Amino acid sequence: MTQRPDLAPLPDHLVRGAVARSLEEDLGLSGDITSQACLPSGAIADVVMATRRAGVVSGMQLAVEAFRQMDPSIVVEVLTPDGTAIKPGDVLLKARGNARAVLSAERTALNFMGRMSGIATLTAAYVARVRHTGARILDTRKTTPGLRAFEKYAVLCGGGVNHRFGLFDAILIKDNHVGVAGGIIPALQRAKTRAGSTVKIEIEVDSLTQLDEVLKEGADIVLLDNMTPAMLAEGVKRAKGRIITEASGGVTLETVAAIAETGVDYISSGALTHSAPVLDIGLDIRIL
Amino acid sequence: MTQRPDLAPLPDHLVRGAVARSLEEDLGLSGDITSQACLPSGAIADVVMATRRAGVVSGMQLAVEAFRQMDPSIVVEVLTPDGTAIKPGDVLLKARGNARAVLSAERTALNFMGRMSGIATLTAAYVARVRHTGARILDTRKTTPGLRAFEKYAVLCGGGVNHRFGLFDAILIKDNHVGVAGGIIPALQRAKTRAGSTVKIEIEVDSLTQLDEVLKEGADIVLLDNMTPAMLAEGVKRAKGRIITEASGGVTLETVAAIAETGVDYISSGALTHSAPVLDIGLDIRIL
Amino acid sequence: MTQRPDLAPLPDHLVRGAVARSLEEDLGLSGDITSQACLPSGAIADVVMATRRAGVVSGMQLAVEAFRQMDPSIVVEVLTPDGTAIKPGDVLLKARGNARAVLSAERTALNFMGRMSGIATLTAAYVARVRHTGARILDTRKTTPGLRAFEKYAVLCGGGVNHRFGLFDAILIKDNHVGVAGGIIPALQRAKTRAGSTVKIEIEVDSLTQLDEVLKEGADIVLLDNMTPAMLAEGVKRAKGRIITEASGGVTLETVAAIAETGVDYISSGALTHSAPVLDIGLDIRIL
Amino acid sequence: MTQRPDLAPLPDHLVRGAVARSLEEDLGLSGDITSQACLPSGAIADVVMATRRAGVVSGMQLAVEAFRQMDPSIVVEVLTPDGTAIKPGDVLLKARGNARAVLSAERTALNFMGRMSGIATLTAAYVARVRHTGARILDTRKTTPGLRAFEKYAVLCGGGVNHRFGLFDAILIKDNHVGVAGGIIPALQRAKTRAGSTVKIEIEVDSLTQLDEVLKEGADIVLLDNMTPAMLAEGVKRAKGRIITEASGGVTLETVAAIAETGVDYISSGALTHSAPVLDIGLDIRIL
Amino acid sequence: MTQRPDLAPLPDHLVRGAVARSLEEDLGLSGDITSQACLPSGAIADVVMATRRAGVVSGMQLAVEAFRQMDPSIVVEVLTPDGTAIKPGDVLLKARGNARAVLSAERTALNFMGRMSGIATLTAAYVARVRHTGARILDTRKTTPGLRAFEKYAVLCGGGVNHRFGLFDAILIKDNHVGVAGGIIPALQRAKTRAGSTVKIEIEVDSLTQLDEVLKEGADIVLLDNMTPAMLAEGVKRAKGRIITEASGGVTLETVAAIAETGVDYISSGALTHSAPVLDIGLDIRIL
Amino acid sequence: MTQRPDLAPLPDHLVRGAVARSLEEDLGLSGDITSQACLPSGAIADVVMATRRAGVVSGMQLAVEAFRQMDPSIVVEVLTPDGTAIKPGDVLLKARGNARAVLSAERTALNFMGRMSGIATLTAAYVARVRHTGARILDTRKTTPGLRAFEKYAVLCGGGVNHRFGLFDAILIKDNHVGVAGGIIPALQRAKTRAGSTVKIEIEVDSLTQLDEVLKEGADIVLLDNMTPAMLAEGVKRAKGRIITEASGGVTLETVAAIAETGVDYISSGALTHSAPVLDIGLDIRIL
Repeated sequence: MTQRPDLAPLPDHLVRGAVARSLEEDLGLSGDITSQACLPSGAIADVVMATRRAGVVSGMQLAVEAFRQMDPSIVVEVLTPDGTAIKPGDVLLKARGNARAVLSAERTALNFMGRMSGIATLTAAYVARVRHTGARILDTRKTTPGLRAFEKYAVLCGGGVNHRFGLFDAILIKDNHVGVAGGIIPALQRAKTRAGSTVKIEIEVDSLTQLDEVLKEGADIVLLDNMTPAMLAEGVKRAKGRIITEASGGVTLETVAAIAETGVDYISSGALTHSAPVLDIGLDIRIL
Repeated sequence: MTQRPDLAPLPDHLVRGAVARSLEEDLGLSGDITSQACLPSGAIADVVMATRRAGVVSGMQLAVEAFRQMDPSIVVEVLTPDGTAIKPGDVLLKARGNARAVLSAERTALNFMGRMSGIATLTAAYVARVRHTGARILDTRKTTPGLRAFEKYAVLCGGGVNHRFGLFDAILIKDNHVGVAGGIIPALQRAKTRAGSTVKIEIEVDSLTQLDEVLKEGADIVLLDNMTPAMLAEGVKRAKGRIITEASGGVTLETVAAIAETGVDYISSGALTHSAPVLDIGLDIRIL
Repeated sequence: MTQRPDLAPLPDHLVRGAVARSLEEDLGLSGDITSQACLPSGAIADVVMATRRAGVVSGMQLAVEAFRQMDPSIVVEVLTPDGTAIKPGDVLLKARGNARAVLSAERTALNFMGRMSGIATLTAAYVARVRHTGARILDTRKTTPGLRAFEKYAVLCGGGVNHRFGLFDAILIKDNHVGVAGGIIPALQRAKTRAGSTVKIEIEVDSLTQLDEVLKEGADIVLLDNMTPAMLAEGVKRAKGRIITEASGGVTLETVAAIAETGVDYISSGALTHSAPVLDIGLDIRIL
Repeated sequence: MTQRPDLAPLPDHLVRGAVARSLEEDLGLSGDITSQACLPSGAIADVVMATRRAGVVSGMQLAVEAFRQMDPSIVVEVLTPDGTAIKPGDVLLKARGNARAVLSAERTALNFMGRMSGIATLTAAYVARVRHTGARILDTRKTTPGLRAFEKYAVLCGGGVNHRFGLFDAILIKDNHVGVAGGIIPALQRAKTRAGSTVKIEIEVDSLTQLDEVLKEGADIVLLDNMTPAMLAEGVKRAKGRIITEASGGVTLETVAAIAETGVDYISSGALTHSAPVLDIGLDIRIL
Repeated sequence: MTQRPDLAPLPDHLVRGAVARSLEEDLGLSGDITSQACLPSGAIADVVMATRRAGVVSGMQLAVEAFRQMDPSIVVEVLTPDGTAIKPGDVLLKARGNARAVLSAERTALNFMGRMSGIATLTAAYVARVRHTGARILDTRKTTPGLRAFEKYAVLCGGGVNHRFGLFDAILIKDNHVGVAGGIIPALQRAKTRAGSTVKIEIEVDSLTQLDEVLKEGADIVLLDNMTPAMLAEGVKRAKGRIITEASGGVTLETVAAIAETGVDYISSGALTHSAPVLDIGLDIRIL
Repeated sequence: MTQRPDLAPLPDHLVRGAVARSLEEDLGLSGDITSQACLPSGAIADVVMATRRAGVVSGMQLAVEAFRQMDPSIVVEVLTPDGTAIKPGDVLLKARGNARAVLSAERTALNFMGRMSGIATLTAAYVARVRHTGARILDTRKTTPGLRAFEKYAVLCGGGVNHRFGLFDAILIKDNHVGVAGGIIPALQRAKTRAGSTVKIEIEVDSLTQLDEVLKEGADIVLLDNMTPAMLAEGVKRAKGRIITEASGGVTLETVAAIAETGVDYISSGALTHSAPVLDIGLDIRIL
C-alpha cells in the first residue's frame, strides 16, 4: 500500500455540510425504520469496509463523519488514508458502535467513498500512463453539481492537479470571448486590464497561428484544444520557456501517453469527474 | 423522438435549491471574471444545446432553472422534454439572452443534463432488454449524495421504477436484521407490529428455504439476492400470486434479460445511478 | 409508571434543528436580558420538571437538547422516558447548571414537552378506548406546520400508529382523484402502473358499492370514510382477509369504541395532532 | 362579517420561510405521488375554502403563499381578510389553477389557517368577555416552537395585544430573579442600571406587600400573579396612575370577566396559544 | 487593566453562525492552500495576540470560536475579557495548536476583534467625555448589515447603552409618521392604541413647541433632534421628571460634553458603529 | 459625474442573501411596528436618496434589492450607478411605493450604501494620489466578516484592484511559511509542486537579499513589505521585467504617492476596507 504524502484535508465545514445533507436525504422524518423495528436499541455492531477492486482511496473524511454524525460514540479506525493504493480485499476502515446508528450511516459512507475513490482511481490510471513524461493530469469544471470540492479533492488523491475551481478564480478565454473582443490580442489586453492581481490568465487556441498571437501578447497559460499530437508537439516547441501549456480534447487512457510525450505541461480531462465508475467497496456488518 | 407520457415534474424547491447550490459553487464571490473582462455587459447570446450521442433526456427543469436563476429575462425553449429518446445531433434546448448570464449558467445546466441523461439512458438500455417480459427495472439507494431525488427521477425518465427513497419510507429486512431478530419469522413479526399503516415490508433472502419461511409468514415483497436464473425461476414459481418478487445481484446489461425471463416482477441495479457515464451533450454559443 | 418499549429516538438532526429554531426565536439578538441583569454570571440553578396532570410523556429528547444547546455543561437526568404514563406530581426531569442558561432554555423545553405530551396523552386515551378490539389508532397529515415529525412521534409515544408522513410516501386516492380518473377501477389501475415498488396504495370510499369495486380491482388499504358503525361493520365483513381497512370521520373519544368494535383494522383522527390541549407540566427552578 | 381595521401583515420573509418548510415536509423528495398518478398534468381545479364553525379568520397570508409557492399562476381570491368574524358556511377563499399544484398546497394552507384561526377565535372569545371593562387580553411565550410570530399575530387578529416576543425585548423579573438579587428593590435597581433605553421593565409579585415595594422603587409594569379578584382589586387600587397592571394565573373563559372587573390593565393567558383547538375549516375541490 | 463587570455573553448561536460564515468566505472550496503547501500537517504553532494601540477589548468570544471551529483541540487562553481597557503592547489572547488550523483562523479572529474593539474603544471615548454628568451614550440602527448584534454588544463593552435593536422592539415616531398621523398627539394616540404591552414609545421632536405637545399627551422617551445646547437645556428642564430625554444630531467627541451638560438622559450617535476605525491588533505566530 | 466603465454586477445570490439577512435583523418577528401603528396601510411614499458629501457610489444593487424585497411593486430609479463620482447634493436614487415598505427598507439600503460608498470613496482617494504613476491600489483580506464580496467590489468601484479573495485562490507565502519550509527557495519549490495550474504564487520579503533569492527561484509576485521608498526603489529595479511587485506596510494617503513613484506595480492597504468612514448619504421621505 503506497500513499500520497501531504494531502491536506478538506475544509471541515464542507465535510460536515455534505454528510448532513446526505444523511437527511436518507433518514427523512422518521429514520431507519427497519432497524428500529428489528434491532434492539442497545445492540452493538462491528463494521469492516473492504474493497473488492484495486484502486486509490478517497473520501475517508466523509465516511468517518457519517458515522460520527449518526453517533459520536462510534469508534472508527482508518486503515488506508486517502491517496493509498489498494488491492482487492484490503480493509479500508473498521468501526464499532450502536448497531442502528451504524446501519443508518453505512450507505452515506459508501456512497461518498465509492464515488470519490472511483475518481481517484481513474485519475491514478491517467497519471500512471504519463509518468515517464513531465506532464501532469488536470481536472475540469465538469463535476457533479454540489460536489465540486470533493471531486477535485479526489483528483488530488489520485495524483492529479486541480484546474480552476470555478468561474471566479482564474480567467479562461475561449473562442466566444475572443470573437466578441475582436481577436486574441484585444481579448488578452482586456483581461490584463481587469484581472485581479492574483488571477492567472489562460487562453484557448485551436491553431498555431492563434498560438503565435498569444505568444506575442503574453499570458500565463495557453490551452491547446483538440490538436493532433504532431500539432501539439509543434505548439509546445514554440511555447517552451515562454508560457505554460495545457492540452485538452480527445484525451483517453489510450491517447494520453502520446499527448504527454509532446512535452505539454498539463493535460485536462472532464472524464475524470463526469464518467468515472464507482469503486466497488463493500461493507460487512456483524451485530454482536 | 418518442417521449414518456405523464412524467410529473420534480418538486420545485428541490430544483431551485440544487441549481442555486451549483451556481454558487461555480460563481464564488466574484462571478464569471472572464466574461466580465471580455464581454460587454449588454451583449446577447444565442445558445443551442444538442446531443452528440443517442440517449434519453433528463434534467430539463434544472437546465431551464440554471438560465432563469442567472437572469430571468433569458428566453428558453425546450425542444425535447424529459423522457424523450434522442439521436446524435438532436437539438434539446435553445436559449437567448444576456451573454454573460448565459455563459455563467451553461456549465451548471450541462452538468445536470449530462449526468441525469446518462442515468436515463442507461436505465432505458436495461428496460429495452427486458421489454419482452413483465419485469420492471428498479433503482437503489446507491445514489450521489445530495442528488437522490434527481437521480431517481432520471430513472423514471428512462422508463424505470423507483425503489424506496430512503431508510424512512419502506422496511427492507436484510440478513443482519434477520440474524439479530432470531430468524425470518420473528423479524417479519417485529416489522409488522411496528410498521406504519402505509409502510411496505420487504425482506431479503438468499435461499429457497428462506423464501419458504417468508411465504409462510407473509410480507409485501421478497428480494431474491444473488440467485442463479434457475434458482430465481424456482423462487418466482413458489412466490407467484402470493408475494411480489425482486431480483438483485449480478445484474448487467448482459445478464438482465435472462434474469427477467425467470418471471420476476422487479430487477434492481445500483449501477443505474452509481456508474452511468455522462451523456455527451454539447452547447454552442453564438454571441450576437 | 408504565412505559412503551422500544420507541426509537427521533433523527438527531431534526431535534437539533427544531430546538435551535425555537431558541433563536426566544433569544433574538440579545438573549435573556432579565437574567443578564438580575443573575450573577456564575450562579447555579437546580431544575425540577414535574407534571400537574396525568398523561403520557413525549418530547424528552427536545427538552434535553434545549438545555444542552444553551450550555453543554448542564447536567440533565431524565426520570420518565418518552412513552411513560405519568400521574400528577411525577417528576419527569432534573437538571443542574448555569442559572442563566437554565432560564433561557426552560420555556423552549416546556413548549415542546407540553405540546408533544398533550398529543401522546390524547392518543393514549383513544388507544385505551379500543384496547378490547384489534383496532389501532392512526394519525393524519393535519399536523402543525414544520413539526410533523415530532407530532407523529408523539402519536407513537401514546401507543398510536403512523399513517403516511406526507404526500410522497404513500398513495391515497380520494374522491377528486377518482372523479378525474373516471372511476375507482381506472384510478387504481393508474396508481398501480405508476407507483414505486415500495409504495402502498390506499383508496377512500364512502359507499359499499365503491368498496366492492375496490375489492374487485385490489389495493393495499381501503379508507371507509364517514360511515355509520353498521355500514362499517358490513364493509369490514366484505373486506376481511382481502384488504386492510381504515375508518375515518366522526371519530371522538365517545365514538371510537363503537367504531373499533366493527372489526376495522385502523381508525384515523386529525384531532390527535390538531386539537390536543397542552399537558400541564411545570418547572421549579431553585437558584443555589 | 366584521373585521379588525389596520392589521399589519406579517413580515414577508417569515411567511415565505414557514410555508416553504411546511411544503417541503409534505412533499419530500418526490411530491404528491397520488395526484401525479391519477390526475393529468394539465387538469385545472376550483377550490372553495369555507368554515364549518363560527370564529375569527387568521392566516390568509400563509394560505395564499402556499398556493403561490406551488404554482405562481394559481389565481387566489381572499374573501375574508384576517380579523374577520365568520359564521358557519362563510366562504373564506377561492382559488383556481393547476389541479396537482392545488392539491399539493391545500393541506399546508389548511393547517396554517385552522391553527391560527383557532387562536384568533379563542382570543376573540376572551376579548368579548371583557369588553365592558378597560382590560385587554395578552398572550405569553407559551407558543408552538418555531411559530411564535404567527401565533402572536393570530392573537392580534382576535383583538388581543402582544406581550413580549421573547427573552430579548423586555425585562420580566420573576421570583427567582428577585430571590437571587436579594429582594424586589435591588432586583429592580439592577434591571434599571442594565436595561437598554427602550426596554420596559416588568416585575411579578404575588402579594400586596411586594406590590408596595415595587411602587416605592418604580417599574413600567407589575404582574399580579395568581391573586383572587378581591386581592387584585386592592392591588389595582394601589397601583392606579403609578404603574401599569397585568393579571395572570387562573384565567379561563369563566373567570376572565371577574378579573377584568377589578380594573386591571392587562390579563395574560397561555391557553390562547397553547391550547386553542383548531378552527374547523373545510376545502372543496372541483377538478374541471 | 480595568474591566466592565457583568457583561453577559452574546447568544452562542449568533457567534457560531457569524464565525462559520466568515471562515467559509475565507476558506472557499479548498482551504488555506499556502499552509497546505508549505507547512507539514503536524506542525504546531504558538500564537500571541497583542494590541498596538490603547483601547477597549470586544470580540473575544468570536476570536475563540474561530480557533475552535478550525480545530477544537487548539488551546486558547483569554487574558483580557471583553470590556477590558488595554494599552499598547498588552497581550489579549494566547493560543497553541495545529499550525495550519491556527493560520486559517487568525484573519477571521482579527477581523472580528479589530472591528468590535474599534467600536468599544470609540464608545469608551464618548463615555469618558460625559462621565461628570448623568448622561449615557446610546447606539443607533446604523450598523453593519448582518452584524448588528455584535456591534451593539461592542457598544456595551465600551460602556454605552443599547437603543432599540430593530424596527420591531420599540416605537420611534419620526416627523414622517407625525405628518401622516396629523400631528404629535394623534400619532402618540395611535401608537398607544396599537403597541404591545411591553413596547416603549419614543417620539422625535425638533422644537420646544412639539416637546410641549408630547408632554401633554405623554410618552416614554422624547428624542430631541438637532437642537443647540441652549435649546436642549430648556427642553430638558421642561421634561424633567415627566419623560426620559435623548439627544441626537451633531454629536461628536468635541460636542458631546456640552450636550451632556444640558442634563439630557441619553445621547445617541451613529458614528459609534458606522465610522469607528479598526483597533490595530496584531498577531504573532511562532511555528514550533 | 464621471463613472467607471464596465463594472460587472455582483453575483445576484450574494446580493439577495445579504439583503435578506439585514432585513431580517431589522424586522424581527413583528416588523416595523412604528409604521404599522402610525401609517395607513395604503399610504404611498416618495423617496430621494442624496449624498451630503463628495465621494464615489457603491452599493446600488443592494439598495435596490432592499426596496424590492420589501415590496416588489416599489418603483426605483437609479441616477448614479456604482462607480460614479458624486458631489454634495447629488441625488443617487429615487423610489416610490408603499410607505410602510419604504420605511422598512430605507435603513438597510442606507447601511449598505454608506459603508460601500465609504470604501469606494477612500479607494478613489488613494487612486487619485498615484494616477501619475503606473501603480495600482490593492485591497487585502482585512474585510468585515461576512461582507468580503461587497467590500472588494466597492474597491473596484473606487478604481482599485482586488488581491486574492481568500486563503483558497492564491498562494501567499509569509515569513512563517518560509521559516518552517527552511528558506525562501524550498518554500517556493514546495508551493510550485503543490499549486493548482491556475494558482499564482506570491511571496513576502522584507529585505533585498530575500528578494534576490525569490528572483533566483522565480514566482509570480513578490510582496515587498515595510520597506522605505529608497529600498523599494532598489527592489523594483532588480525585479523589473522578471516578477510583479507589490508594496505593503505604512501605506497612508500621505505616503502612497512616494511609494508609487518607486515604480512598484501594486500597493496594498487594509485601511481601504477596515477603516473607511461611512459616506454620509441621506434619505428624504415624503408621504403622499
